[in-house]
Amino acid sequence: MKTTVTELFKIEYPIVSGGMVWCSGWRLAAAVSAAGGLGLLGAGSMHPETLAEHIAKTRQALGGNGGRPFGVNVPLFYPEIDALIDLLIAERVPIVFTSGGNPALYTERLKAAGMTVAHVVASARFARKAEAAGVDAVVAEGFEAGGHNGRDEITTMTLIPQVREATRLPLLAAGGIATGRGMLAAMALGADGVQVGTRFALSAESSAHEAFKARCTTLSEGDTMLCLKKLSPVRLVKNEFYARVAEAEARGAGVEELRELLGARRSKRGIFEGDLAEGELEIGQVASLVRRVEPAGEIVREIITEFRTAREEVQRWEI
Amino acid sequence: MKTTVTELFKIEYPIVSGGMVWCSGWRLAAAVSAAGGLGLLGAGSMHPETLAEHIAKTRQALGGNGGRPFGVNVPLFYPEIDALIDLLIAERVPIVFTSGGNPALYTERLKAAGMTVAHVVASARFARKAEAAGVDAVVAEGFEAGGHNGRDEITTMTLIPQVREATRLPLLAAGGIATGRGMLAAMALGADGVQVGTRFALSAESSAHEAFKARCTTLSEGDTMLCLKKLSPVRLVKNEFYARVAEAEARGAGVEELRELLGARRSKRGIFEGDLAEGELEIGQVASLVRRVEPAGEIVREIITEFRTAREEVQRWEI
Repeated sequence: MKTTVTELFKIEYPIVSGGMVWCSGWRLAAAVSAAGGLGLLGAGSMHPETLAEHIAKTRQALGGNGGRPFGVNVPLFYPEIDALIDLLIAERVPIVFTSGGNPALYTERLKAAGMTVAHVVASARFARKAEAAGVDAVVAEGFEAGGHNGRDEITTMTLIPQVREATRLPLLAAGGIATGRGMLAAMALGADGVQVGTRFALSAESSAHEAFKARCTTLSEGDTMLCLKKLSPVRLVKNEFYARVAEAEARGAGVEELRELLGARRSKRGIFEGDLAEGELEIGQVASLVRRVEPAGEIVREIITEFRTAREEVQRWEI
Repeated sequence: MKTTVTELFKIEYPIVSGGMVWCSGWRLAAAVSAAGGLGLLGAGSMHPETLAEHIAKTRQALGGNGGRPFGVNVPLFYPEIDALIDLLIAERVPIVFTSGGNPALYTERLKAAGMTVAHVVASARFARKAEAAGVDAVVAEGFEAGGHNGRDEITTMTLIPQVREATRLPLLAAGGIATGRGMLAAMALGADGVQVGTRFALSAESSAHEAFKARCTTLSEGDTMLCLKKLSPVRLVKNEFYARVAEAEARGAGVEELRELLGARRSKRGIFEGDLAEGELEIGQVASLVRRVEPAGEIVREIITEFRTAREEVQRWEI
């Protein structure tokens, strides 16, 4: 399948697995890349030495140097960001996705080291900034996405056409896409490929706790909500922790109180340690369409099969 | 173009113009139906006698009894709802879209009078209730839609596949759809047609004030926001009135204070009278894709043309 995304990343299918905290380790990244997509490691929840180990294992699983490509997602607010950038360059990681910060800061250095760089945005305005910073591709992520999210609350349906107008760079759609139908919809709107988070976060190879996966594959519609908007908006499953946040927000709690309520390490506690009551359970709205934990390679194949079927279907309407 | 929606409503294209307060009078409904879509009158902002006049004018414009079909949107929280239902039956309106209430209350009576009935929902749960109430079709409307909106904040991208799973009734997607690409995306997700609000609210035949149309066709992404969630969630353009609401909500203002702040007749003031600072400017997130005021018939034709082009494009990827 040739799109600008498959050509840029030298992959078979334009499906990228999001680099998600506490989910995206070497097993998931390698499984997605082995199936013909692009697997990303999530550096956001790894110390540099842990990341180095995951890079080595991913590369080994994919056939060593010259094997199938993989990438690393780097949140630009990472505390040891300079050490991390040095590591990516030293390890000659082929592809880097940056998110949550200013792409002007590191893109030039990463590109000079021969890497392909994509940047995650939540608006057309930031897509233009990313292009000006010299990135090779953009990921446009809508309001329905899990975890940290944009302030403008723009949904994937309205975001993709606007980012498409703003830039001709290869464009990946993210947020609300878990199936082949979702992929066809995103590409009809103007995307060249998709970044899938939630469904891979709940795959067999995800490093998330099994209790987290079990909870998230039984969610109903409306069971996640974007909250903590006075700090940094994040989409979470409604649990006991969320209920306290919602109560505090309804009575107008300020930044300090919310910061204290949030405390530290809650996403690790929820996603990696499986504390379903008190952890931050970051997952996308589309989780309510995901009912089973499946191998990541199988997910790639199912998405492609359903994409093809849906594409045949839309031909059948007499128009 | 044959889909279950075109067959149910006996129309040429599966495009319905939303029955929007202060926008959807006889000129807009007649223009959309004349172009082969289904035009709806918005009863929510009309006294029964005004509605009777609009029904008569729409019918006349469409060739009298036996002419092209049209419909009426009825918000079920309408104060004079019983008088309104009596009127619809007396006038033998062919199609009724109900919204914002319990479809079990009136569907049977409307159906017994020979009408085709659709109900607007914002979740799969309510789609099941609507089907149980005996409606002929459902409209599933996502978080990105303008005006009043569901509490679960489910976006069109995640909503449509879930409603598709919940019911086999003819399904119209709404929220974020203003173009042929949006229509193709919605139908790829499982819809049989689309209800377009924002773009028709900003058409030449819309009864909205020209100042409202001018403001809404120059919006940027992020210029609308869902607010007043403690009362009834509504998507509005950010203006002076919105700023006061946002300030009150941030400090935890309660229902009483918000109700007082809202007062009465603000949507009329904003949409119909063109008070851009103090009115409620109800419009969808997708307004930032709409840059011109065009005739409604032209909009129907453009959507169909773009739908066809986009459908050809998705065939071209090698997969």
